[in-house]
Amino acid sequence: MQLTPKVKEILSWYESDNPGTKANLARILMAGKLSGTGRVVILPVDQGFEHGPARSFAPNPAGYDPRYMFELALEAGLNAYAAPLGMIEAGASSYAGAIPTILKVNSSNSLSTTKDQAVTGSVSDALRLGCSAIGFTIYPSSEYQFEMMEELRELAEEAKSVGLAVVVWSYPRGPMLDKTGETALDICAYAAHMAALLGAHIIKVKPPTSAISLDAAKKTYEKYPVDVNDEVARFKHVVQACFGGRRLVVFSGGEAKGTEDILKEVRAIHAAGGNGSIMGRNAFQRSKADALNLLSSIIEIYQTPAS
Amino acid sequence: MQLTPKVKEILSWYESDNPGTKANLARILMAGKLSGTGRVVILPVDQGFEHGPARSFAPNPAGYDPRYMFELALEAGLNAYAAPLGMIEAGASSYAGAIPTILKVNSSNSLSTTKDQAVTGSVSDALRLGCSAIGFTIYPSSEYQFEMMEELRELAEEAKSVGLAVVVWSYPRGPMLDKTGETALDICAYAAHMAALLGAHIIKVKPPTSAISLDAAKKTYEKYPVDVNDEVARFKHVVQACFGGRRLVVFSGGEAKGTEDILKEVRAIHAAGGNGSIMGRNAFQRSKADALNLLSSIIEIYQTPAS
Amino acid sequence: MQLTPKVKEILSWYESDNPGTKANLARILMAGKLSGTGRVVILPVDQGFEHGPARSFAPNPAGYDPRYMFELALEAGLNAYAAPLGMIEAGASSYAGAIPTILKVNSSNSLSTTKDQAVTGSVSDALRLGCSAIGFTIYPSSEYQFEMMEELRELAEEAKSVGLAVVVWSYPRGPMLDKTGETALDICAYAAHMAALLGAHIIKVKPPTSAISLDAAKKTYEKYPVDVNDEVARFKHVVQACFGGRRLVVFSGGEAKGTEDILKEVRAIHAAGGNGSIMGRNAFQRSKADALNLLSSIIEIYQTPAS
Amino acid sequence: MQLTPKVKEILSWYESDNPGTKANLARILMAGKLSGTGRVVILPVDQGFEHGPARSFAPNPAGYDPRYMFELALEAGLNAYAAPLGMIEAGASSYAGAIPTILKVNSSNSLSTTKDQAVTGSVSDALRLGCSAIGFTIYPSSEYQFEMMEELRELAEEAKSVGLAVVVWSYPRGPMLDKTGETALDICAYAAHMAALLGAHIIKVKPPTSAISLDAAKKTYEKYPVDVNDEVARFKHVVQACFGGRRLVVFSGGEAKGTEDILKEVRAIHAAGGNGSIMGRNAFQRSKADALNLLSSIIEIYQTPAS
Amino acid sequence: MQLTPKVKEILSWYESDNPGTKANLARILMAGKLSGTGRVVILPVDQGFEHGPARSFAPNPAGYDPRYMFELALEAGLNAYAAPLGMIEAGASSYAGAIPTILKVNSSNSLSTTKDQAVTGSVSDALRLGCSAIGFTIYPSSEYQFEMMEELRELAEEAKSVGLAVVVWSYPRGPMLDKTGETALDICAYAAHMAALLGAHIIKVKPPTSAISLDAAKKTYEKYPVDVNDEVARFKHVVQACFGGRRLVVFSGGEAKGTEDILKEVRAIHAAGGNGSIMGRNAFQRSKADALNLLSSIIEIYQTPAS
Repeated sequence: MQLTPKVKEILSWYESDNPGTKANLARILMAGKLSGTGRVVILPVDQGFEHGPARSFAPNPAGYDPRYMFELALEAGLNAYAAPLGMIEAGASSYAGAIPTILKVNSSNSLSTTKDQAVTGSVSDALRLGCSAIGFTIYPSSEYQFEMMEELRELAEEAKSVGLAVVVWSYPRGPMLDKTGETALDICAYAAHMAALLGAHIIKVKPPTSAISLDAAKKTYEKYPVDVNDEVARFKHVVQACFGGRRLVVFSGGEAKGTEDILKEVRAIHAAGGNGSIMGRNAFQRSKADALNLLSSIIEIYQTPAS
Repeated sequence: MQLTPKVKEILSWYESDNPGTKANLARILMAGKLSGTGRVVILPVDQGFEHGPARSFAPNPAGYDPRYMFELALEAGLNAYAAPLGMIEAGASSYAGAIPTILKVNSSNSLSTTKDQAVTGSVSDALRLGCSAIGFTIYPSSEYQFEMMEELRELAEEAKSVGLAVVVWSYPRGPMLDKTGETALDICAYAAHMAALLGAHIIKVKPPTSAISLDAAKKTYEKYPVDVNDEVARFKHVVQACFGGRRLVVFSGGEAKGTEDILKEVRAIHAAGGNGSIMGRNAFQRSKADALNLLSSIIEIYQTPAS
Repeated sequence: MQLTPKVKEILSWYESDNPGTKANLARILMAGKLSGTGRVVILPVDQGFEHGPARSFAPNPAGYDPRYMFELALEAGLNAYAAPLGMIEAGASSYAGAIPTILKVNSSNSLSTTKDQAVTGSVSDALRLGCSAIGFTIYPSSEYQFEMMEELRELAEEAKSVGLAVVVWSYPRGPMLDKTGETALDICAYAAHMAALLGAHIIKVKPPTSAISLDAAKKTYEKYPVDVNDEVARFKHVVQACFGGRRLVVFSGGEAKGTEDILKEVRAIHAAGGNGSIMGRNAFQRSKADALNLLSSIIEIYQTPAS
Repeated sequence: MQLTPKVKEILSWYESDNPGTKANLARILMAGKLSGTGRVVILPVDQGFEHGPARSFAPNPAGYDPRYMFELALEAGLNAYAAPLGMIEAGASSYAGAIPTILKVNSSNSLSTTKDQAVTGSVSDALRLGCSAIGFTIYPSSEYQFEMMEELRELAEEAKSVGLAVVVWSYPRGPMLDKTGETALDICAYAAHMAALLGAHIIKVKPPTSAISLDAAKKTYEKYPVDVNDEVARFKHVVQACFGGRRLVVFSGGEAKGTEDILKEVRAIHAAGGNGSIMGRNAFQRSKADALNLLSSIIEIYQTPAS
Repeated sequence: MQLTPKVKEILSWYESDNPGTKANLARILMAGKLSGTGRVVILPVDQGFEHGPARSFAPNPAGYDPRYMFELALEAGLNAYAAPLGMIEAGASSYAGAIPTILKVNSSNSLSTTKDQAVTGSVSDALRLGCSAIGFTIYPSSEYQFEMMEELRELAEEAKSVGLAVVVWSYPRGPMLDKTGETALDICAYAAHMAALLGAHIIKVKPPTSAISLDAAKKTYEKYPVDVNDEVARFKHVVQACFGGRRLVVFSGGEAKGTEDILKEVRAIHAAGGNGSIMGRNAFQRSKADALNLLSSIIEIYQTPAS
């Protein structure tokens, strides 16, 4: 498969990585309907762990069967499918080589009262299951953030050494942050930047709001203003925080919401130069037909050449 | 031994596992009187650790001798016998090859005030003792749940790599759950689902009650109702949470109770498509004759082809 | 040396162990004046660690020199000598092959306020010092009990793999137990049973009193009564808790006390089928002549064939 | 490249190090405009981690792109560039061999409430990225200081064994120190000395103030006075605390401040025999032209032969 | 070099050690002016870590340069020089083979509020630096005492396996001990005994006072009295606690004090059969001439044959 110039450019950003890791990044970038565009749409299914099976799959019970997720990602022409160990094990052989997979190697759940996650998968698991990358969540600001970063460091170093890519979910939460703070623009950019500093190849953050949370940062944003009321400007700020746009950054869709809201957000990400979306509940909690429609509309936006 | 189509189908669910692990799952599924049916009855004897020797064995003192348990499981035609290190060591050579064994590798006791367990066995122990699987308990919602899950992850990865199967006891308990919550339907299904996500081959949970415990889940169960007053529907919901029925799930008998209550529960598990029972105190605290009678009745129910 | 039928029978209980471990158990069982009887008397000297040197050795200052302990155990015709690293190092070469030794690999002291011990020796130490076994203390019910059990698990697995035997001191203490509870009959039997489940070859507990401590156990002891006022019945109950008598169990002498009290207790252990005594302060805090007299009387009792 | 006598002298201080480490120290000492003088100016860019991207790079947005930092250090003729993993990965191949790099292997951030850092890089990372040294921060007096020192010990031992140099940022903070105490003269000298004792090759501390913080130290400073109001005397005291001047010690510029203040400080460091400056925010938060001007003035001072 | 009968006798106490460790003990015992006497004087320089550089070296600024300490120990004809990593690295090559060195592998500092130390050196460090022994401090009674003992166990086992000797500083402190208790006779003897049990070759304790601290010990000291007001009797008691005098035990000089007080104490140690002194601040905080005079007087006392 001939790589496109765009993909070659992206790979050039990762100049320290070995050919194995570059190949796996290329596999993700060259898969599906967005192949070669430098944009990606990824299906993540860690909702079962995070919220339990009924809250995740009752709206569309086909989703109880892990094979459904592989099918959905494949039929929709997505770039990759990300899930915890058991979900990947349940289909990795049937769908081997059909679609790039990302093994989510840590997980939390709704029965926990601490802002931490359990490590639930390994680099060896990712290799034996044919995954292209590992996925790892950090909670910057949590009491456990340093432990999480150290776990990531070890897993990422091992992953890179065996030619896997590293996807980091960077979700700030902790004693210094209220609900608004968790998605404030400064915090979101900070979270993305830390993921980049930690060596992530692909960074996943939540869409930033117009809030500025840290007192220490307010002075800076006053002196060097970002138009916080402009959604595109906010996404651009986060893209800039990812090494001036030289790291892949994708945004989550967040809670299930209406199709128009989703597409509006996607258009802003696209316009800002973001690299794509990670779309979970909004995809697998609809009927397959509805999900394919929505994903098709999203992909169509990302297929539009950048203006 | 020719595997039945049912067992072949079950093995196909575990498509990521190596032939060694599949062989050990097959050994359990092909043992005893339920051989080849896809249903299993397992004798677990961790009561001595959990409640002490007198509370466990005084009602039937023959049970003080670990050889009795091997004999009981073998004579009753069960699929496997599960116990902690010392119990297995005491009979593993005499009964080598006679009945599949599951080494319970963590254990709690009644003298503890924390919701944790000690790791008391290893994968190497399981191999040297000829076991087919390791067994591990997690307490979802406990303050120690992430540590327990991480211990399981390490042990399960090692077990799978050397061809052993992994049985997970998933017993929710912790600060967010009162007594009712521990066996509520949503919690029980969640616990089963997490065990599946953690890569368990066989999942063991308690029979779910009609309660719904998590506030966040109540909305879901209202919108997508389960007939919580129908025992069969409840078991079906748990089976569904196990990857849409593509993971083996068995239910404990719980506290010693009357024969009729037990058989009623077993009939519901059978009707719901559950894969069987794990029957401890209700088996070894009766006289051997009574235990064999009870186990025979249970097996008879599971032998009935699914309607 | 031809093993006696009794020793052969005892070795048959440990059917999962390798020949190396069986040989070391046999060395202990075939040593000294009780050679071949299946009964053992062991000299433990961890008092210096537990209570300090003056409280341990001032009554008989010869004991400050570690060689005295080897001499005492050897002259008295005991089965083994157990002590921490420094004590064994100080005589292991001079007495190599003369008497089986047990390296006590964890230790507490009177300057600690926590119910834990430090690991102070290793399996490698035991091997290089020619020991037949490692000794390890657990405190069931302590806040540290799970950590202690996990340390034991690791050390015991390693010890067994290199042909050493494992002796477990099981001393309940912790927040659920008052002074009475620590030696209550139910607790003592429970402690012995847990040591057996953890894979101990030789179990050491304190003599049980007539108390029943755990509320949850009282019902059981009412329904299935043990004659708690009969010392022999109490020891029998503990022996039964050790896999129905298929694990070696020995009892400590406890605090220094009068000769007649000691011999009365030994007679009860003997009558109950207990495997012997571990006799520290009552031995080394007397003059050597007195100690040899006492130990001779004890051995005489154990030499009597079981009635 | 012929080493100068000054550099040879400095290397002689590190008499226990292997030729690999000496070569890497020489690479740093022979790079840039200060080549061979025994003085160094280093560009550190861990501000993104410490304060977030906007506070670090908004004043000069060119800095969002990690390649800018390599360019700046190279064009200014500095001795080395120090940064966390992601920053180094983003340019290590493009600038391989162009300028010595220091991989900062632990990092803190403004979202943390604890006085600790996460280990975010490894010696293997440093090797694969062609770095000359690892950098590590300790917080003497922090509740985590012993853990940090132990992490440093492990990383430093490994680094030295593979021929890397070790740079230690020693920043006192913790319950015994108020803001004044953190940069008090006694504390600063103590921090430098501890870094030397821990085996650092290059020590980085903050410029000391005239305060004396520890009560226990006041008596000493009264009896053996240092002229605390003389900036040069203070720097000399810190140099002396670095093994009587036989360890390289550099000083941070601290918060962004005016050019004249910076140069005044640099002149004092130079006069005191300090080995140079580490200049972050004061360099990369100006326009490149301004930064080059400032760095040129600093280098000019350090190029002046010692009086 | 022909060993003296006294040194041969001492080596015979360490009958379990390998020839490498015996050779290193012999190197220490055969070095300097006390060569072959079985007495030792050691220069320890961990004051810089413990109290900071000015409090340690301002009284005699020559001490800022680590080479001074090697020179001082060598010129004074001492048996060994003990210091943390950085100090040894700074002179190990220049003085290789000139004087035995002891690498102090853990260290505390005055900025800490916990009764613990950081591990700051390794056995590999000791080997590459040509040391004869590692030194390690334990704080019996500290909340961290078990962790410290476990660190010592690991390091000591490794040290012994590669032929190094082990020197243990045993300094009781913790919640059960007030200032008086830390140096009380019973506590000091207990601390020395624990070091011996932990496998130390050379034990370092503080001179005991006449106090008896532990209530549990008072009864013993009443029944078996030690003449606590006789300094020699107190030292004898500590010597006895070191395996009846079969482990080398040396005493610290404590805080800087007058020459006559020091010599009086040394005479008492000598008379009691103690093996020598470890003399830090009292040596390196004087001018070199004064220090050599004092050390010469001390050595002269120890050179006197035992009466």
